Amino acid sequence: MRILGIDPGSRQTGFGLIDAEGNRVNHVHSGFLRLQGEDFPARLRAIFIGIRELMNEYQPEAVAIEQVFMARNADSALKLGQARGAAICGALAADVPVAEYSPSEVKQALVGRGGAAKEQVQHMVGLLLKLSAPLQADQADALAIAICHHHVSTTLGRIPGAAGARRGRFR
Amino acid sequence: MRILGIDPGSRQTGFGLIDAEGNRVNHVHSGFLRLQGEDFPARLRAIFIGIRELMNEYQPEAVAIEQVFMARNADSALKLGQARGAAICGALAADVPVAEYSPSEVKQALVGRGGAAKEQVQHMVGLLLKLSAPLQADQADALAIAICHHHVSTTLGRIPGAAGARRGRFR
Repeated sequence: MRILGIDPGSRQTGFGLIDAEGNRVNHVHSGFLRLQGEDFPARLRAIFIGIRELMNEYQPEAVAIEQVFMARNADSALKLGQARGAAICGALAADVPVAEYSPSEVKQALVGRGGAAKEQVQHMVGLLLKLSAPLQADQADALAIAICHHHVSTTLGRIPGAAGARRGRFR
Repeated sequence: MRILGIDPGSRQTGFGLIDAEGNRVNHVHSGFLRLQGEDFPARLRAIFIGIRELMNEYQPEAVAIEQVFMARNADSALKLGQARGAAICGALAADVPVAEYSPSEVKQALVGRGGAAKEQVQHMVGLLLKLSAPLQADQADALAIAICHHHVSTTLGRIPGAAGARRGRFR
């Protein structure tokens, strides 16, 4: 199963594509959409188009995105919210379901502790995907979300009736 | 020129379609996407799909949306931001440019005063479009944004080099 993970941000949006089967996860492609320097409308468009293009090119069967609860203030929340909305719609445009995970769910899935440090999560991403080059932070986070989705889907798949019942999905 | 105006909200998103030419503006279709009761992911999807369907059915040449600066708190700002992002992407999916206007620009265009009361704006919408039935508030606001876009485009169109130079556009 191919999964696209997204770490949304209004200045930079990370993405990570993995192929997952059973206990194996392989890195397909990852990086980030750099959005600095452009005005905000242009940035929003770049996120939507960028994610839509990734969907078309790599044809993932599922998309996972980080759930955001908190923001520094109302202004940055508005910007982050729009960036997240644009990323989600880039996936919905390709008619693929979008699942959301909280930061602690991602940490739990990768490190086994919901309170793990961000660096531990990023370290585990490199190990699991057998990557030698260091990852940029947003890129690693996006890959972590994709791995988390695989982990949660396969774990819940073993509990009859539990798959997909846990969380709101975008489809 | 056919214009779609959008008043984005996470519980209800108003829309208003007008045909505009010179000093004449005609009502084509308006209403609101009611989003209450569903979970948030489903609401976001309903906005994106709803706007995209309006784009496909009515083929507007331009989209105008209210600019949001303020929100009650970071949580509602996140929700409003995502709703706004989804509405904008519904328009971008149809490859139509999206312009944004502040509430005071809309008031200025409709009533001639940036500080006008919301009720005055809604009253003017009914008069300009010769509507007999009262409008729901979000619906009237969406139509006001569409009329504002027509007003600003035609006014700036008369100033060489000014059209489109004023504001960030989503395309």
